[in-house]
Amino acid sequence: MTMQQSLRTIAGAVDTLLRQDAYPDRIRPDYLGAAVRDYPARGGKRLRPVLLTWCGCLLGAEQEKLLLPAAAVEVFHNWTLVHDDIIDQDPVRRGMPTAHVVLGREMERSFPGADAERFGRDFAILCGDLQQSWANDLLARAPFSPAVTVAALRRMQQLGGIALISGEAVDVELSLRDPLTVSEQEVIAMTRGKTGALLRLAAELGAMFALECCDPEAPAIRKLGDFAEDCGVAFQLRDDYLGIFGTERLGKPLGNDLREGKPTVLLLRALSLSGDTARRELASLLHRPEPLEEILPRARELMIDCGARDALELEMKQLIQRAIGQLETFPDHCCRDYLTEFATLLIARDL
Amino acid sequence: MTMQQSLRTIAGAVDTLLRQDAYPDRIRPDYLGAAVRDYPARGGKRLRPVLLTWCGCLLGAEQEKLLLPAAAVEVFHNWTLVHDDIIDQDPVRRGMPTAHVVLGREMERSFPGADAERFGRDFAILCGDLQQSWANDLLARAPFSPAVTVAALRRMQQLGGIALISGEAVDVELSLRDPLTVSEQEVIAMTRGKTGALLRLAAELGAMFALECCDPEAPAIRKLGDFAEDCGVAFQLRDDYLGIFGTERLGKPLGNDLREGKPTVLLLRALSLSGDTARRELASLLHRPEPLEEILPRARELMIDCGARDALELEMKQLIQRAIGQLETFPDHCCRDYLTEFATLLIARDL
Repeated sequence: MTMQQSLRTIAGAVDTLLRQDAYPDRIRPDYLGAAVRDYPARGGKRLRPVLLTWCGCLLGAEQEKLLLPAAAVEVFHNWTLVHDDIIDQDPVRRGMPTAHVVLGREMERSFPGADAERFGRDFAILCGDLQQSWANDLLARAPFSPAVTVAALRRMQQLGGIALISGEAVDVELSLRDPLTVSEQEVIAMTRGKTGALLRLAAELGAMFALECCDPEAPAIRKLGDFAEDCGVAFQLRDDYLGIFGTERLGKPLGNDLREGKPTVLLLRALSLSGDTARRELASLLHRPEPLEEILPRARELMIDCGARDALELEMKQLIQRAIGQLETFPDHCCRDYLTEFATLLIARDL
Repeated sequence: MTMQQSLRTIAGAVDTLLRQDAYPDRIRPDYLGAAVRDYPARGGKRLRPVLLTWCGCLLGAEQEKLLLPAAAVEVFHNWTLVHDDIIDQDPVRRGMPTAHVVLGREMERSFPGADAERFGRDFAILCGDLQQSWANDLLARAPFSPAVTVAALRRMQQLGGIALISGEAVDVELSLRDPLTVSEQEVIAMTRGKTGALLRLAAELGAMFALECCDPEAPAIRKLGDFAEDCGVAFQLRDDYLGIFGTERLGKPLGNDLREGKPTVLLLRALSLSGDTARRELASLLHRPEPLEEILPRARELMIDCGARDALELEMKQLIQRAIGQLETFPDHCCRDYLTEFATLLIARDL
């Protein structure tokens, strides 16, 4: 089986489970239950379930037994998207209206004259709350010993709870600060939380269940966790990179980060590598109202000339090499190959 | 020890645990961690921890071992308050500014010019999310067998998740509907979710841990759960009753439910028992802009004359009698006496 075939098999199994799982059935009103199923049913790459499954199978678990934990991390990911979309006031998620928009329209239909924006947001808050609970329920049902299930649930609160949500909060804060006052270390730390923590959780849970081990500090579990977290950081660096140097990206127009003055590592590196004149010019291209095609070419030139683009490309490769290095001590196994290929693809193109 | 002494002892132990628990320490930014501790540290009656502890001790558990589950239901209650306060746009909770107000002021201080209302709300969403996770973490650490801990965690997702949040959502819906189209059954069902489910959870968890029993349908567990849920419904009926016929209530001015047109059981009963003329007059007193002292006396008269007040008083007593009846088959024990006194006090006065 190729990596892509394995990926599709796992994604398909998770899709089926999430579509059929009974948890949302008893939610009232019915349209709130439908909203709870909505994001998870929109598909997507299922990176977290796939990572969990490959890490678990690499250490000897049966793929089918990992299905509930795999679905749990996917649903956990989705509740963070629902609340993130409220916070970012985003109208679109995977080509469809976001949860708060869908629920606002529902309110408008049922209660003409009601404040659709307000009640859409209120119900989307409750939708994400229910999904967080659903994720815990899925994980609690994992077909493994209760001791390791409890350890997995605790790990979900540490990484999915504290680390991820802190990352989201710091991300909101960073977006309000002047990029010139933000350090790369702060952005990387935020990314390790917001993007890295849930990938780490997925890898660790697969490994914990496979080894029936309650200690996430055990060497094999830690290595797979480090692998996944570094992959997450590289993926985010790549995402920011493609936001400037990509040719096209699904949904999000090129250069948006400049308009929002988002302190990406790429921008911060360019600001710190540039001389005074270039730095001032680059800073002046942030938060500009002009069409992006008037801003972007010059921003690209400045980022290339100071060496920031090349430095970032090199560092993404090094990060992925370090991640793949974590896999070296594991035995030869198709899942080790899948994980290696997966990591390589993360920075090679939009997976 | 009297019931009030036992109540204070349990509340004090929960206060100490919540103040010292390490979960919020690693949350960033620091003020978000502080907000996560804030509501749980504001005190309150700790009804849910007390209920859990008495039900557990009644069935033979040691009080100290129940402290983590008791703290878990308290924190669970608090996250629902944080999100509820956003939804209701309430400025005050237990005499202090609500979480979204506190966090909004924090944003204003750190980022002058930022939209304090928006970011206060955004951070309060994340605050409640973290508290939900904290509640799961506290419960996962309960010093009991992993099997019963997993069963308890699952029960928390069913009652604290599905039932409670569905109750909140239906409550929002009911507030948007014309009270004349709402049935008492709908309001009672909503109340069993929004208020009853978490009290039921508290009672069931105490009993499940005491009996090391994973099945919430076991007769002793079910009886205590029914007791707690009926207490919750009676408490809510009493709360609505005091909102009209009380002399004074903390924070919430008398008659607010009329101004908001809130379909309480009291109002619905009065509408259904009244003749056409009185019903039209009572309906005309809803959503009125006049000072409440001009509206409330006439509304009271109408609710008394049609017999709704007396009917409600009788039904609250019957509900509490039915609840206390669930305790009959349990052995003689101080906690049985506490539970009986607790139920009686719930409708006798503001506990």
